[in-house]
Amino acid sequence: MPRIDAIDIFYLRGPEILDISDNSQDATLIRISAGGEVGWGECDASPLPSIGALVGPMSHVACRPVNDSVLGEALDNPVDIARINQRIKARSLDLLQANHVLAGVDTALWDLLGKRLGEPVWKLLGQKRVTPKRAYGSQLFGDTAQETLEKARTQRAKGFVAVKFGWGPFGHGEVATDADHLTAAREGLGEDGILLVDAGTVWVDDLEAATARLDALRETEATWLEEPFVSGALDAYKALSERSGSIGIAGGEGAHEFFMARAMIDHGGLDFVQIDAGRMGISEARRVAEYATAKDVRFVNHTFNSDLALSASLQPFAGNAKDDICEYPVERKLIGESLVKDRIARDADGLVCAPEAPGLGVEPDADVIRRFLVDVEIKVAAEVLYKTPEV
Amino acid sequence: MPRIDAIDIFYLRGPEILDISDNSQDATLIRISAGGEVGWGECDASPLPSIGALVGPMSHVACRPVNDSVLGEALDNPVDIARINQRIKARSLDLLQANHVLAGVDTALWDLLGKRLGEPVWKLLGQKRVTPKRAYGSQLFGDTAQETLEKARTQRAKGFVAVKFGWGPFGHGEVATDADHLTAAREGLGEDGILLVDAGTVWVDDLEAATARLDALRETEATWLEEPFVSGALDAYKALSERSGSIGIAGGEGAHEFFMARAMIDHGGLDFVQIDAGRMGISEARRVAEYATAKDVRFVNHTFNSDLALSASLQPFAGNAKDDICEYPVERKLIGESLVKDRIARDADGLVCAPEAPGLGVEPDADVIRRFLVDVEIKVAAEVLYKTPEV
Repeated sequence: MPRIDAIDIFYLRGPEILDISDNSQDATLIRISAGGEVGWGECDASPLPSIGALVGPMSHVACRPVNDSVLGEALDNPVDIARINQRIKARSLDLLQANHVLAGVDTALWDLLGKRLGEPVWKLLGQKRVTPKRAYGSQLFGDTAQETLEKARTQRAKGFVAVKFGWGPFGHGEVATDADHLTAAREGLGEDGILLVDAGTVWVDDLEAATARLDALRETEATWLEEPFVSGALDAYKALSERSGSIGIAGGEGAHEFFMARAMIDHGGLDFVQIDAGRMGISEARRVAEYATAKDVRFVNHTFNSDLALSASLQPFAGNAKDDICEYPVERKLIGESLVKDRIARDADGLVCAPEAPGLGVEPDADVIRRFLVDVEIKVAAEVLYKTPEV
Repeated sequence: MPRIDAIDIFYLRGPEILDISDNSQDATLIRISAGGEVGWGECDASPLPSIGALVGPMSHVACRPVNDSVLGEALDNPVDIARINQRIKARSLDLLQANHVLAGVDTALWDLLGKRLGEPVWKLLGQKRVTPKRAYGSQLFGDTAQETLEKARTQRAKGFVAVKFGWGPFGHGEVATDADHLTAAREGLGEDGILLVDAGTVWVDDLEAATARLDALRETEATWLEEPFVSGALDAYKALSERSGSIGIAGGEGAHEFFMARAMIDHGGLDFVQIDAGRMGISEARRVAEYATAKDVRFVNHTFNSDLALSASLQPFAGNAKDDICEYPVERKLIGESLVKDRIARDADGLVCAPEAPGLGVEPDADVIRRFLVDVEIKVAAEVLYKTPEV
């Protein structure tokens, strides 16, 4: 019975960190070893607090570092992963950042177990085969409507029928300005393009501000409006979903555990639930995918990191035929683009499937990790509690 | 117009950290300076990830360190505090630990503003006068029913009419064992004692496990059952509240922002919402208190730290006459007991009021901070990003 003999965390950082909504400018990676196998996971999380959550000293019985619930645990089958998840949740209950670290840990556990058993993770999760997903190109709005138009044309030329625009100026200014951006996006995509819009929580819980954009969204035939509000604003979500008609309401990336996502399905009126395995782990994301299916809500991944994260986020719904669209980042920085050698590619029709190879089916490149690795040292009461490990 | 010119974080640790549910074994303190005044706040949070969340490098536009949204901001009135809160929430949206740090920051801002304006925080929050609260002694169950009996007698002898027992063995074993503990607690408290029971999320979301304890709770006339489930398990909370009859259902300490607590009120059927200002800040806690009043749910503080945290947690409902019970830790370790010189005392009837002095009305003792201060140094890419500051 192999036991987990090492768990390491790595902080990677690109040459510049810009003040933009691009989560792939740095990276938080988790590496777990057991019985001679190694698994990798990526957290969509702030690196330094995550290191603290993995190795920081215990505060009390329910506020322990994550590694304390992982090291030495048996890892033979999916039940072990469920047990380790539960251990972390109970023993790090009061350590808020622990959920983001758990995400990478859970992913690395599945990767490791899949490699050992020679099976892709999605199969270990109970799915018989993968079903193709329409990859939507995920990018930021342009600073001007003209720029948005050009960005839409560029993605369409690259073969993206479905394109999501998000963040940037959208929602911060006049309703008419937003309408201009939406019109430009529709024009650039063409009549048959699938237009997805991401407001990036800009209206917090202001129902009227979101409602004011519905006409322009309808006129440009947007498929969904994503994150009009912060994840917890269930009442505002619900009310908007009752007004939005043909415009689907999407959200959920802010959920860092199953129950948060479930609340948005049960009480927020979501049409699409968007889950980042890098924020809650593959195990919890799978629970959300199953729950969404039962409630006839469409599950979509949220991914703005490397292909390691993309594979992780595809696993929970890899075999759900009805969930046929997936986020596919196209504007990533260096780390996001290069961490994995064999990219998860779109086919000629622009479709993507979860990898068939064991585990996550993708492997981070050690040279790339070394290239971007940040030296971190944390001393607590004269003891070195963390030092960037060897790759 | 004074601006915030410094924000510091301190990690305090007692001589031993035991594997028990006592949050006062260490401490995370925030100190903010502006225009010659200083304010203090305590986070109920893991220290090392919190330091990382305050000072760690930016990852992207919505994943910045908390200090980046605080330093240099104007601080003249409550509107400024609301603005700084919103800044942190938007700019640290993807930094999970940020909410626990915000709690201490928000508290320190209120303390500082109150001192400057010569008013207690509760008055700045719009409350006209303080109303007394019955202090309930909050402690852990004994390891045996006999020990629980003795602990109940001890608290009663100390003048606590209301006593809460939590954690320890409760819920982990047989229903009969839990019943023995409850019977012992009731016996020790006497017939007229107010018995409160805290399950510490032990049943996660297992409705039947919680239901199995209702008979014993009814027989011993417990006033509430607290945290039968994790905070997000709205459905289980709701279902239990429909079965619990005379036993009130309490929860909410896990909420790290207003919307989480609101969801528990709207969809979890809570009778008592328990909020820790050390986890969401005074501003958000005040929103919960106002919302709870509107929904006829009773607001109670959650506090297991020092009297700095106790004062912070009393402020949001200091003047709500109907919310007439408050948590008052009685089993704290060294730091919790000594951090503040002038304790918030119970009167002869066992009642407690929020302090009348400006700000929080309590001041941490610099000598105590120095005594327990932990030396921490964090280096990132050869640069010292954090070093324990001078007190």
